[in-house]
Amino acid sequence: MTAKPDQSQTTQARTVLSIDAMGGDRGPLPIVLGMAASAEKNPNLHFIVHGPKDDLDRLVAARTVLRGRCEVRHCDEAVSMTDKPSQIMRNGKSTSMWSALECVRNGQAEVCVSCGNTGALMALSMIRLRKLPGVNRPAIAVLWPSRSKTGFNVMLDVGADIRADCKDLLQYALMGVSYARNGLKISLPKVGLLNVGTEDHKGRSELHEAHELIAQYEQSGDYKFVGFVEGSDIPGNKADVIVTDGFTGNVALKTGEGTAQLIGELLRQAFQYSPLSRLAQLLAVSSLQRLRKRIDPRRVNGGVFLGLNGTVVKSHGTADETGVSAAIKLAVTLANSQFSQKIAARVASVNTLTHDEENATSEAE
Amino acid sequence: MTAKPDQSQTTQARTVLSIDAMGGDRGPLPIVLGMAASAEKNPNLHFIVHGPKDDLDRLVAARTVLRGRCEVRHCDEAVSMTDKPSQIMRNGKSTSMWSALECVRNGQAEVCVSCGNTGALMALSMIRLRKLPGVNRPAIAVLWPSRSKTGFNVMLDVGADIRADCKDLLQYALMGVSYARNGLKISLPKVGLLNVGTEDHKGRSELHEAHELIAQYEQSGDYKFVGFVEGSDIPGNKADVIVTDGFTGNVALKTGEGTAQLIGELLRQAFQYSPLSRLAQLLAVSSLQRLRKRIDPRRVNGGVFLGLNGTVVKSHGTADETGVSAAIKLAVTLANSQFSQKIAARVASVNTLTHDEENATSEAE
Repeated sequence: MTAKPDQSQTTQARTVLSIDAMGGDRGPLPIVLGMAASAEKNPNLHFIVHGPKDDLDRLVAARTVLRGRCEVRHCDEAVSMTDKPSQIMRNGKSTSMWSALECVRNGQAEVCVSCGNTGALMALSMIRLRKLPGVNRPAIAVLWPSRSKTGFNVMLDVGADIRADCKDLLQYALMGVSYARNGLKISLPKVGLLNVGTEDHKGRSELHEAHELIAQYEQSGDYKFVGFVEGSDIPGNKADVIVTDGFTGNVALKTGEGTAQLIGELLRQAFQYSPLSRLAQLLAVSSLQRLRKRIDPRRVNGGVFLGLNGTVVKSHGTADETGVSAAIKLAVTLANSQFSQKIAARVASVNTLTHDEENATSEAE
Repeated sequence: MTAKPDQSQTTQARTVLSIDAMGGDRGPLPIVLGMAASAEKNPNLHFIVHGPKDDLDRLVAARTVLRGRCEVRHCDEAVSMTDKPSQIMRNGKSTSMWSALECVRNGQAEVCVSCGNTGALMALSMIRLRKLPGVNRPAIAVLWPSRSKTGFNVMLDVGADIRADCKDLLQYALMGVSYARNGLKISLPKVGLLNVGTEDHKGRSELHEAHELIAQYEQSGDYKFVGFVEGSDIPGNKADVIVTDGFTGNVALKTGEGTAQLIGELLRQAFQYSPLSRLAQLLAVSSLQRLRKRIDPRRVNGGVFLGLNGTVVKSHGTADETGVSAAIKLAVTLANSQFSQKIAARVASVNTLTHDEENATSEAE
C-alpha cells in the first residue's frame, strides 16, 4: 500500500479525523463536546463530522474552538445498537457510519471514530475499506490497564471474529506489535499467546501451532515472544501484546470490566458504611481520584480495528465527553505515527513468507 | 447411587473430612493451622490427614483443639506442582493426594480437600472416584464474588477440560444448579450460558445447541434459564450459575483475579502517595478492610470438582490458614447437605431423558 498523496501532505500541518456523530447511546452531544475538548488541546486537529446537519451545525456553532475546524456532512440515518450487520451492509448507505468510513476510504480523513454498533462498524469497515492484503481476519485491539511501564497492554482480538486459526493468531501478533510500537512507543514489544496455563502441553491444538508460528517469526517480525500467558497476565507486565481469538478475548475484556466495576461499587459502599467511613472518604478523595484516573475505562476508551486499509477507532457506546475525547486522542496518535501504512508494511513483509509456505503446503497435499 | 451406611450414620453426629496435607506451596503448616481454626468453630468436625507422619503428628499435637479429632495417615510422597497428571496416575500410589482421595472412595470421609496440583488432582479423582453415571466431563466450579443476594455466583467449568460440547454444557448447568442450591441455598437458581453477546445469533454453533438443550430441561431440571450472558454478567446478578467450557472459564477466572489484584495494588499505591493520603488510609482502614473481606479470594477459597462419585474441594496452592479454613468450611457445607448424593440424583434424572434421546438419534442415523 502506498500513502495517498493528499494524506502525506497534510500529516505535518494538520490531522483530519472523520467522526460518526450518531449511534452512541447518548446522541451527538457528548461526541461534539469530546471533539471540542480535544480541539482545545491540539490546534492541528480538524474534523469531518457525520449526522443530521441542523443538529450538528447548532452544536458545533456553540463551541468557538471548533470554528473553521469542523465540516458537517449531512446523513439522514443512523445505525442503531440493535441493527444487524447484514442489514446495514445492504441498506446502510445513508447512515452516518457509512459516510464517516467513506472519508477514510477516499483519503479525506486519516482515522474514523465511531461510538456505534461494533458488529455493523466492523462489517461496513470490511466492505468499504477492505482487508489488507494477506489479512484473513481483521481484529479489534484494546489497551488494557496493566503493570507495564507504559501502564497498558495491547490485547487482541476482543471480538471482531469468534474464530481464529494459527495463521490468524500470527497476524494478530504482528498487528498487535505494530500497534504497541506506534500507539505505546514500545520499541521491542513482548508478545504472549493466551492459554489456560504456561506449560507447553496445555491448551487447544491450534494454540500449539500458533505457538510455533509466532516463535518462528520472532526475528523477522521484530518482537520478543514470551510464549503462553494466562488470564492473570493480561493486566501484568509479562507481555505487552496479548494474542487470542475474538471469543476468548471478548469474554476476558468484559470479565475484566465487570470485575473493575463491581470493585468500584463495593468501594463506594464500604465508604458509605458509617459516619467515620464517610469522613475517611472525604480525606481519601484525592487518593481515590488518582486510582480512578488510572483505571478509568473512559480514559483508555477505544478499540482499534486492525487489518484494514485505514484505521477505525471504536469508542464505547456509552462514552461521555471524556470517553470520546480519549478515543479522539488515540486516533490522533495513530494518525500521526502513520500507523495505517506501517501496519500494512508489517503484515506484507511476513505475508510474503507465509504465502510461500502456504503454496508449498498446498502443493504437498 | 445409594448412601454408604457408615456415612449416613455419621452425618448427624460428625463430619469427617479427608485432608491432603502436602502439595500446597507452603507445606503442611498452613493446612494444620486451617484445620485447627475450623475445628475451633465446629465441634462436630473430624479429620483424616495425609502426609509425613512424624511432621504431622508434631504439628497436630501442638493444637489441643485437634486432640482426638484428627487421624494421621502416613504417606512417603507428595505430588508437586510440576508433576504431570499422567505420571501421577501411573506412579502416584504412595502420594498424600492418592491416600486422601482413597478415604472418600471407601466412605471413611465425606469430602476430600487438597491444595495440590489441579491437573493431577482431577486425573486421580477421575480414576479413583470415577465419573457419575451419565457424566462425560467432570467440571470445576468456583464461587465468584457478585452482586447477587448471596454475594456469589457459581461459575463452571473453570478448567477441568478445555473442551465441552452442548451435552457437556447441559450437564454443567445441572451440576451448577445443584451446587448453587446446596452450597448457596438458592431455591430456584438462574442459569446463564456465557457468550460474546446476549443476542440469539451470536457465538459458536455448539453454544446455540446448548442454548436449546438447557432451555428444554428448564422444568425437569428445576432452574430458570436466562439465556446467553456476557463476561460482565459473571460478577452480576443476572444469573446465579454461569456455564461455559473450561478454556473460556479458566481465562475468565484468572482475568478476574488478575484485575482484582491489580486494583488492590493500585489502591495501596494511591494511599501511599502523600502524607495526607496516608492519613486518609488510617481513617479509611475499616472501610477498606470491609471491602477486602468482601472480595478476598482467600474467603471463597475452593474450586469444587463436580460429576464424580464423591466431592473434592481444590484449595489454592498458595492458601494460608484463612484460605485452608475457608476451603474446609465449604467442604463441611457440602458434606452436611449430602451434596454428593443429590448431584448424582439430579444428573441421573436428566440422564435418563438424554440417554433415551441419544438412542433415538443413533437409531435414526
